[in-house]
Amino acid sequence: MVKFIFVRHGITIDNENMRLSGFIDSKLSDIGKEQVKKTCNRLKYEGIDYIYSSPLTRAVETAREIADFKNVEIKICQNFREMNFGDFEGLTFKEIQDKYKDEFNKLKKDAFKYKFPNGENMIEFHHRISSQLDDIIKKHDNETVLIVSHSGVIRSSLSHLLSKDHIYHWNFKIDNCSITIVEVMDNFAVINTLNNIEHLR
Amino acid sequence: MVKFIFVRHGITIDNENMRLSGFIDSKLSDIGKEQVKKTCNRLKYEGIDYIYSSPLTRAVETAREIADFKNVEIKICQNFREMNFGDFEGLTFKEIQDKYKDEFNKLKKDAFKYKFPNGENMIEFHHRISSQLDDIIKKHDNETVLIVSHSGVIRSSLSHLLSKDHIYHWNFKIDNCSITIVEVMDNFAVINTLNNIEHLR
Repeated sequence: MVKFIFVRHGITIDNENMRLSGFIDSKLSDIGKEQVKKTCNRLKYEGIDYIYSSPLTRAVETAREIADFKNVEIKICQNFREMNFGDFEGLTFKEIQDKYKDEFNKLKKDAFKYKFPNGENMIEFHHRISSQLDDIIKKHDNETVLIVSHSGVIRSSLSHLLSKDHIYHWNFKIDNCSITIVEVMDNFAVINTLNNIEHLR
Repeated sequence: MVKFIFVRHGITIDNENMRLSGFIDSKLSDIGKEQVKKTCNRLKYEGIDYIYSSPLTRAVETAREIADFKNVEIKICQNFREMNFGDFEGLTFKEIQDKYKDEFNKLKKDAFKYKFPNGENMIEFHHRISSQLDDIIKKHDNETVLIVSHSGVIRSSLSHLLSKDHIYHWNFKIDNCSITIVEVMDNFAVINTLNNIEHLR
């Protein structure tokens, strides 16, 4: 059995301004830093053997605080980087809709097959997440692995663990500094808790 | 959009003794009553328009306390009764395994098609839950409906809302007095939080 604890990074200035941030870097806001402290405190209840983190600053800042609190090493994992939104990085949905009307309509039409200009599509994205998760499952039997990452990555992980497919990507809400716990045994996943943010109240 | 808030009843003496209780009735234990009080307190954050409850005493005891706290009427709903385990009601898994070895092996072989002696099978059970949910979705547009029910009913509900199928029944953990929130819009479900039990700490 592998126990996954997924933590989304604390809120960033881009998140606060509703700007799409995938591959681009951004830092935690002051509220984000507070969220991370509260998340550490909630994690005192959890045993953690390994921490994997996305390489993006907002995730590493979050993971570093947890790692220090729990005295666990961080493994930086390129595959857990957020989706690459290409030319749309840093824009709001309103700006995309105004500046790239045709592209926005294509995105609305098929969110899974749509490839962001100079970025990824959902299926490519899902493939890098799911292959990384399958690697961890093989490598960490009987261990608890905490993954600090992004909303898209966590949604994609849940869809994969549940169905081996990307189709449930949009069926889960993942808030900043939420905790989601999934146990995987004999290739079967049980979601113990999802998008838990009570510790942020 | 319909917002569902699923609450599992507080713990019972049968739950504490690991006895299978489906159609049979049982009362909350003292710990269960404490859990319900804490759950009411957590629900102060949620607006609730309607409460549906399973008719079984453990659910009604839970729903009554919430209804009084939130000043909302309870609708008793036969379809939200737990699965009918027939001859196995009140037994532990150890007792079933010892007394009904052949039946236990059949159950292990196909948990979905297996029909409990003088009880239901999972597909029949799923059908009564999913048709009731679909009714509520039609009836309660733009409202928040709290459902007090049982672990099997809530797992079956999640599977239906996500996939229109029973296949994900076993992929969700549902603890006593846990809170699970799902928003359904245009036939598409987003799980906001699942098996949230932080209020019971």
